[in-house]
This record gives sequence, structure tokens and C-alpha cells, in this order.
Amino acid sequence: MNSQVIRNVRPLGEAAVDLVLEQSVIQAVLPAGTAALDMDCLIDGKGQLLLPALVESHVHFDKTLWATPWRPNTAGPTRNDRISNEQGLLKTFDVPIAERAGPLIEHCIARGSLHFRSHVDVQTVWGLRHIEAMLALREKYRQLIDLQLVAFPQGGMLIQPGTTELMRAALDLGVDIVGGIDPAAIDRDPIRHLETLFELATRYERGLDIHLHDPGDLGRWEIERIADMTQACGLSGRVTISHAYSLGAFPPNDLLALADRLAELGISIMSCAPPHVTVPPVAMLRSRGVNVCSGSDGIRDAWSPMGNGDMLERAMLLALRFGWSKDAELAMAFDIVSSGGARALGIPNYGLEAGCQANLLLIPAENLAEAVVDRSMQRTVISHGRIVAQGGVFTGL
Amino acid sequence: MNSQVIRNVRPLGEAAVDLVLEQSVIQAVLPAGTAALDMDCLIDGKGQLLLPALVESHVHFDKTLWATPWRPNTAGPTRNDRISNEQGLLKTFDVPIAERAGPLIEHCIARGSLHFRSHVDVQTVWGLRHIEAMLALREKYRQLIDLQLVAFPQGGMLIQPGTTELMRAALDLGVDIVGGIDPAAIDRDPIRHLETLFELATRYERGLDIHLHDPGDLGRWEIERIADMTQACGLSGRVTISHAYSLGAFPPNDLLALADRLAELGISIMSCAPPHVTVPPVAMLRSRGVNVCSGSDGIRDAWSPMGNGDMLERAMLLALRFGWSKDAELAMAFDIVSSGGARALGIPNYGLEAGCQANLLLIPAENLAEAVVDRSMQRTVISHGRIVAQGGVFTGL
Repeated sequence: MNSQVIRNVRPLGEAAVDLVLEQSVIQAVLPAGTAALDMDCLIDGKGQLLLPALVESHVHFDKTLWATPWRPNTAGPTRNDRISNEQGLLKTFDVPIAERAGPLIEHCIARGSLHFRSHVDVQTVWGLRHIEAMLALREKYRQLIDLQLVAFPQGGMLIQPGTTELMRAALDLGVDIVGGIDPAAIDRDPIRHLETLFELATRYERGLDIHLHDPGDLGRWEIERIADMTQACGLSGRVTISHAYSLGAFPPNDLLALADRLAELGISIMSCAPPHVTVPPVAMLRSRGVNVCSGSDGIRDAWSPMGNGDMLERAMLLALRFGWSKDAELAMAFDIVSSGGARALGIPNYGLEAGCQANLLLIPAENLAEAVVDRSMQRTVISHGRIVAQGGVFTGL
Repeated sequence: MNSQVIRNVRPLGEAAVDLVLEQSVIQAVLPAGTAALDMDCLIDGKGQLLLPALVESHVHFDKTLWATPWRPNTAGPTRNDRISNEQGLLKTFDVPIAERAGPLIEHCIARGSLHFRSHVDVQTVWGLRHIEAMLALREKYRQLIDLQLVAFPQGGMLIQPGTTELMRAALDLGVDIVGGIDPAAIDRDPIRHLETLFELATRYERGLDIHLHDPGDLGRWEIERIADMTQACGLSGRVTISHAYSLGAFPPNDLLALADRLAELGISIMSCAPPHVTVPPVAMLRSRGVNVCSGSDGIRDAWSPMGNGDMLERAMLLALRFGWSKDAELAMAFDIVSSGGARALGIPNYGLEAGCQANLLLIPAENLAEAVVDRSMQRTVISHGRIVAQGGVFTGL
């Protein structure tokens, strides 16, 4: 690929620039109007906002019912009801994962996300079927997106004999991250659960991403144990705690020492910021240096019919959740669905500087705040220097 | 206007019908395919969902900054900070209300709302300027929408001498509803505030809509007093309490008797269901027969940069706020932004039966639940039997 230029775009709302790309990498950032006139023009941005591609840090692609007819939610009220309801549905669901998750991935790309971490169920009821399907999709979309896969023991690990072996098999197949879930409420033996996860992470040299819905003091105690083991195993910067509802159960000022410890160990907190439960005090955590990322969680699945994978909408929902209305707060919401995600996922060369991969989103907005509030669908998505979606329509394959 | 037919639409998701319109009224609802073939066809719905037009029950059109360049939010943290910040901005803002509120009204129509209740500031700092501008807009859009105006003493009534006289003048000019605000926190004399409002409502034979952010026991006590006065003045069915945050401060079961009283007096509760404050227990209130409606509140104004006037998105935000995921719950969210609003606003002939006004929304969705979750922009909006917006584009004037 020869040099190309993206003309007249405003990185994060700053002064307009021309972006020179070479071999899918940003080679130079020049004042607008100064790139060579004979250079191949990828797009004239006409003063649009230039953003790094969005980061979806927590999704369950393997379980979506996307692109299938509407299905009423039939789950019972508890988390275990939902797990068994979903097992019953997905065991026999006759549309293959590729035909549901594939269209959803393309939809997410069209909304501007190019980096994803998807949890993938590892359960004895279906063995490695979900893992294999998602590995195939990772391959299919390899030229377009980063798709990290997490081996996720949704139904529990210790209480479902055979699951730990399946986790190992998934990691052998090339799954990126070790996943866990509610060491106390679901697996009922928090220390054994966490020790098993950290053993797997250490042996396979992988990061960890642990679903933690366990409430109040219980969840907080588990977060402290996760910190202990992160330190003991030398896994600083490679651990994410997803949901961490328990951190919302305390006045933020009671959590300062814990926040400092999370920051020191590079443990990221992932919050979708749902409005009907307690959620981590995101602004306080960030002010202490804790990395925060966000995600869609389940999209149109047996847990919830909600969601559309739009990470700008997620930034808006984060802002609503905390009553953020200042430009700096809305920019923080944007940072969580972009750079915060990139830090949690360990994405190299993320950003808008020379040397970064040209994974970009152009959108008509004055600044980050307006992009989050307005969520215009007039988006142009560029993956590795190539336009892969415009106006909400995926054109990448 | 001769008879026209809307072919092949599914009212609220039920079996497909042909809708025969005459003089902008639904004249007959026939099984799909049975309307006379030579009848003028307004639109072939192709099996889309047919909904009554959405109802925006609480908005502040007069203060929006819509259609003007992005403006960072500069308000201080308290409600009084926000009031004085807004006064300072709007006193000298150089884009006329018609050029901000007009485009916003057209945007809301394009999203499917045709019935509105807008609060309009009555403040001594600008007298009746906002009222006059909104009366002119009501006139401009009279053929397309119901636009109820509320004389709203945003800065207080008793504490701002001259405001009560302005309220009377606004009602003399033809404003529809008497508005009030925080009788305790802002006007600092709850009984005098409420007595003044009910006196105005009685003398002018108008309904009432009272902003009530006053918290906890204080707000609850005020709601009881509003009930007393509604009963004493014979204003059953004509009073709305907006926000009513205090009702979210108690376990729903402690509010059953109060809910029954609100239901008996036909007092509606309006909630935008913001996620960062306590909100009324909507499902419990409805289960006791209390009418609940919803609105956007401020859209892109000095209070908050958020909002787009999309009442289907509002239904989705309501559902998220309460963790609703069942079809019946999502249908309830839809009912709140449609029939609930129509009941609160007292809109005659609202609905999809013969005899109702043909104010309609067509949207591609399987049922109410999917319409709320998906919020497709492929909407066709019909006002009084005429297409006024398609695909998000207003074409009504």
C-alpha cells in the first residue's frame, strides 16, 4: 500500500490536521492543508472529529441471538435461573454462532469499534463448541479487528467437574485470556476458584478477566484477594475485574486505599454502568489512577434483550449513570470506551499519534462531548488504513 | 380529504390490518387485504408495527440550545446554581427561541412524537418573552401537533415578587397548564405556594403540573398536600407531579396507601427515570392504578447537554433504569411514553381504534418490546392522516 492521506480532520476535537498513513500505520500528523497534494486521498474529513476506534471491553458474542427473530426473555429472577435458562436455550438453538455473532461483529464495526474482548462460555453442557466457533470468527475477521477471547466458566468451574480441563483445552486452542466468575456465590469456594484461575494464567502466560457480581463486603474481600494473587503471581497490568458491583456499596472515600492498590497493580475495572444495581465509583477510581473500561455485556441474548454494541451510546449511558454533564466528564466517558479499553486489553500502538495503527473513527461533532451526546450515525470507520464502514453500513469484507 | 387506507400494518404487534382513514380520523380497522382496492393508499405498511404517535409529557422547549453550536455546561452543582446560570445565559442569548425550539420540535416529530407538554419559564428577569415565543410556535405547528404549554415559575414564585402576576398574564394569553416548583426547597413556603397554584388552576379552569424535586419525607409530605388540595378543589384527573424523586426514597411497600390515593384522585406521576437519583417506583405505582408518563426534560440546554427528544429511547432508558427485560415490562415502558402520556395530558381520541385521530407511527419491529429495544430510525410518522416524517427526516411543513 502506498502512502495515503486523510485530509482535514480534528483529532479529539483539536486543530485540524492531515493524517499521512503508510502501510496501515499513521506515519505523520501534519497541519491541515499541508500534506502533499498529489498524495492518494483516502478521505476528505471536511473538519470532522477524528477518534481512535472504539474499544468494546466486555461482550458475550457467542451467546447473542442477534440476527434471529425476536425472542421473549424467559429467565427467572436469580443469576442461577438465568444461567440454567440460557443453557436450556442455547443447547438446542438451531442458528449457528457464526450466523449470530458474525453479523453482530459487523454491526459493532459499523458503529466504530475495532477492538473487542469477548467472553466465551466454557461449559460441560457444550464443551468447546462456543470456543471453536469464536476462534473461527476471530480468524474470519483477523484483517479487520482485534478480537480477544476469554475462556469463561459461566456455569461455575469447581462446581462443574470437567470445566477446569475444558478451560485448559480452550487455552491450548489459543484463547487469549483466563476468565472467572463469582468465586463465592457461584463456585462457593473463593480461594480455590481464584487459585485455579491464577494457576492457569501463570502456566499459560495469559491475562485474567474475572466476572465479579458478588455483593458488598463479600465482593470487596474477593477484590482484595485478587489483588493479593495478582501481586504474588507477578501479573500486574494483566488483570481485569468485570462488574465489581461491590465497589458501589461503599462511600467512595472508604475505598481510597483499595483503589490505590488496584492502581499500583494495574488491575482494570470494567463497568457497563447499569442503572438498576450498584456500580463502581468510576470517577473516584480514575482520580486515583485505576484504569476503567466498559462494554456492552450481553447483546440481545437470553440474559437481556437490550444492547446494540454501540460504544458511543455506552459512553452516553455511563455519563447518564453518574449524572455527568461537563465537557471534561463527557470526555472521561469517551476515554473509558477508547483508551481505557485499550489499556485493559493491552492493545499496542493505540491512538492518533505517528506510529499508531490507523484504526479510526470519523464523526461529525464539535468535540468529544458532542460526539458522546449526539451519537451521530454518520460514522466513517477505518481499519488498518482502509474504510470498512460508512453511515452505519459495514463494507469491510 | 377523501378516504385513504394504510395497508398491512400490525397494531401494537397484533394481526395485520388495513386502516381506513377519513377526514384525518381512523374510520375502520379491517383485516389486512380487505380494504377496497380502489381506495387511495396513503402507505403500504408491509407488515410494520403500527403505534399511536408518542407522547412527550415533560420537556422545556423554550430553553433548548438545539441547532446552535456546542456550548460547554458551566452550571454549579446545586439547583439554585443551575437556575441562576441559566438565567445569565438566556437573558442575553442571541438566537431566538423560535430558531432553537422550532428545529427541535421538528426533530421530535421525526422521531415519532405528536403530543407534547412543554414547561415554559415565567420569570421576572424576562417576563413573558418565553411564553410569547412558545405561543407563536404552538400556532405555527397547530396543524401537526398538540403542544400544551405550562406556565412554569422556574426561579420560584413567592420568592420572586411579580411572578404570580406574570403567571396570571400567561394564563390570560392562553397557556394551558399551571406549573409549580419545589414548594419547600425553592419557594420556602409549601402551603402558600400550593394554595397559590390551586387558586390559579381553579380560577382559570386549568390543570396543574408541579415540578417536585424536594427529597425524602419532605417531598412525600408535599405530595400528600397536593392530594389534599386536588381533592378539595375538585381537580381530579387534572394534576401531574413531575419527577417526584421523594417516592424513590422509600421501600415501595411503604407507599401503597399513598399510591392508592394518587390513583383515586387521578394524579399522574411524570418520571424521566434518571439513573443518578432516586426515582418513583413506576411498576408498583402502575400496579395500584396510578397513571405514569415520561418525558425528555431539558434537551441540550443549560441544565444538561443530554437528550434528543426520542421517546422510544426514553422508553428504553426507563426499562434500563428498572432492569426491565420481559416483553410485558418493555410493553409497559412503551405504554408510559404513549397512553400514559395521553392520559396525563388529557388527549382526546388517542389510540388505534375507529374514531381515534390518525396520529401514527410505523416502525419495522416484531412487537412493542423490539420497538423499544431496537429504536429503528426507519420511522414513518403520520399526523392527522398525512405523512410528516420518514426515516428521521421531517417533511411536515
